[in-house]
Amino acid sequence: MARARQVEGLRTIGVDLGGTKLLGVVADGAGVVLAETRRPSGEGAESVLAGLAGVVDELVTSVPAVAAVGVGVAGMVDYEGVVRYAPNIAGIEGLAVGTRLEKACRLPVAVDNDANVAALGEVLHGAARGCREVLVLTFGTGIGGGVVTGGRLLRGGHGYAAEIGHFTVDPDGPPCACGARGHWESFASGTALGRMGREWAARGEAPGVLARAGGDPAAVTGHEVGESAVAGEADGLALLDSYARWVAVGLGGLVNIFDPELVVVSGGLVTLGDLLLDRVRAELPACVEAPGHRVVPPVVAAALGSRAGAIGAAALARRRAEAVAEAPDAREHTLARETERP
Amino acid sequence: MARARQVEGLRTIGVDLGGTKLLGVVADGAGVVLAETRRPSGEGAESVLAGLAGVVDELVTSVPAVAAVGVGVAGMVDYEGVVRYAPNIAGIEGLAVGTRLEKACRLPVAVDNDANVAALGEVLHGAARGCREVLVLTFGTGIGGGVVTGGRLLRGGHGYAAEIGHFTVDPDGPPCACGARGHWESFASGTALGRMGREWAARGEAPGVLARAGGDPAAVTGHEVGESAVAGEADGLALLDSYARWVAVGLGGLVNIFDPELVVVSGGLVTLGDLLLDRVRAELPACVEAPGHRVVPPVVAAALGSRAGAIGAAALARRRAEAVAEAPDAREHTLARETERP
Repeated sequence: MARARQVEGLRTIGVDLGGTKLLGVVADGAGVVLAETRRPSGEGAESVLAGLAGVVDELVTSVPAVAAVGVGVAGMVDYEGVVRYAPNIAGIEGLAVGTRLEKACRLPVAVDNDANVAALGEVLHGAARGCREVLVLTFGTGIGGGVVTGGRLLRGGHGYAAEIGHFTVDPDGPPCACGARGHWESFASGTALGRMGREWAARGEAPGVLARAGGDPAAVTGHEVGESAVAGEADGLALLDSYARWVAVGLGGLVNIFDPELVVVSGGLVTLGDLLLDRVRAELPACVEAPGHRVVPPVVAAALGSRAGAIGAAALARRRAEAVAEAPDAREHTLARETERP
Repeated sequence: MARARQVEGLRTIGVDLGGTKLLGVVADGAGVVLAETRRPSGEGAESVLAGLAGVVDELVTSVPAVAAVGVGVAGMVDYEGVVRYAPNIAGIEGLAVGTRLEKACRLPVAVDNDANVAALGEVLHGAARGCREVLVLTFGTGIGGGVVTGGRLLRGGHGYAAEIGHFTVDPDGPPCACGARGHWESFASGTALGRMGREWAARGEAPGVLARAGGDPAAVTGHEVGESAVAGEADGLALLDSYARWVAVGLGGLVNIFDPELVVVSGGLVTLGDLLLDRVRAELPACVEAPGHRVVPPVVAAALGSRAGAIGAAALARRRAEAVAEAPDAREHTLARETERP
């Protein structure tokens, strides 16, 4: 316990390894960011690893007394910290991020999926502080998800859990990025909102949205739909209504499955604020089983913005370091080889 | 710890409170059933409660040294052991099963959903022994589900989690028992197999199935479809193919969400054995994200049959009793007022 308290007082590094950029922070035990750096993610295992090590080196130099490093990777990461599937970062499948980065930077390293660590960040330091049962959803290019249950991240049997954008909501729906058809992600991601906008515009049903894209239906993205809705145009608002229904359809299923205390929503679309969230809140009860007999969870915007992943990764590093200090042998504490260090 | 070991040596009662019948067992720490009794569930809170108390009285009389009682209820049960929604048992919404039964039988009582305790039974004493990340699915009138993650039952923020039949797989699908449209349950329950059979028979596409129902399409149920498939008839097998695809579509989403080590399937349809399960196994990888990069979990038949709920309820009683003995103040140990007993 004395060692656990010691760890708590120290700073940890969190790195968010995304498809295009690396964002690294040093955070204290309250999730306050003391230093920050970013650079391109790179391509290929060695380049990505060099980038990660560079971020850690830079941050260790700028802030003293760093205890451990956490990394959130845009992909599936197993319990040994090995990347198993990362369609958005070329050449890193099979990369043992945990052990390789530990060797490179001589600090304990914990690794998890980027959406998972973002969820941990929101639960420990953001919009879901104090909650033990939370869904954190990121609506962007795809749908990222992290689930906290019993105060712990849901990781599953092999580390790949919480791929919550990937269940079928319509078997005849559009293809999903993962190759399947009609997954929730293909109806409720930011990308899907853009596709809906293009379809409506091509049919002549979204004049306001179309004008914002210079009159070219193919140029419409979720951004123009959002702008149109914010401006109060009927077509933008109708598109947002339709989109919010799809968000609620999938979210209702997840509420039936997880019964969360709170749902936290992040991603670019959150800039639309209550214009979007109020629509989701209005549709949600009809998508939840027995809404008159239970609490339908509040839906709130995330608090940590684009730094949620990095702050959460720093929190992951601290959690694992604390856990190892308290119970070095426990199976779930995968801070690799922490006890072998000099 | 001494107290915990003491509890382990004792027997516990488990009661499965279903829509039509009460099944009670006394089980030892290995899940071996030492005594068993059943009676109709009754209707209305007082009648159901009297039935529960009667089952406990009878079992306590027949087997000495019973330490606690667990109850699995076909409905949503909150953390205080109060039934919040139970569409299949008339008049028990609002019934505080836990505290009322404790008063009646003077034993500690733990209460949970019936599918949840069945899952616990399979994990502790059945087909998923030794696993910490498991989905247990029951395909019957509806789809019941229990999820074990980190070795614990997933209960969520209010106790209602794991309603895993209730997510939309087709917004234009048939109505679900819960009132929503196109939930997985309305495509992949035993009831849904019967409906498919009636539809095919009415269209003249299921002659073998129809003959088994005396030539009346309206008389077809899942039972005749199963018989036809077992007999090797083309129509019965084709119906089973189609049904297995729906099972796999929903199950694939749940695998993406939970990443279980193992999927256990129970319910009446399991009598079809590998005739059904092999079809589900064949369809499942295509419904899971990145199947070439991960383990797709094995799908196996449940081991405890119709006694899974009662055996699991007995295990729940033992677990809570052990937990309270070890840490009487912990939030999640809802064995109500255990510490106030004489």
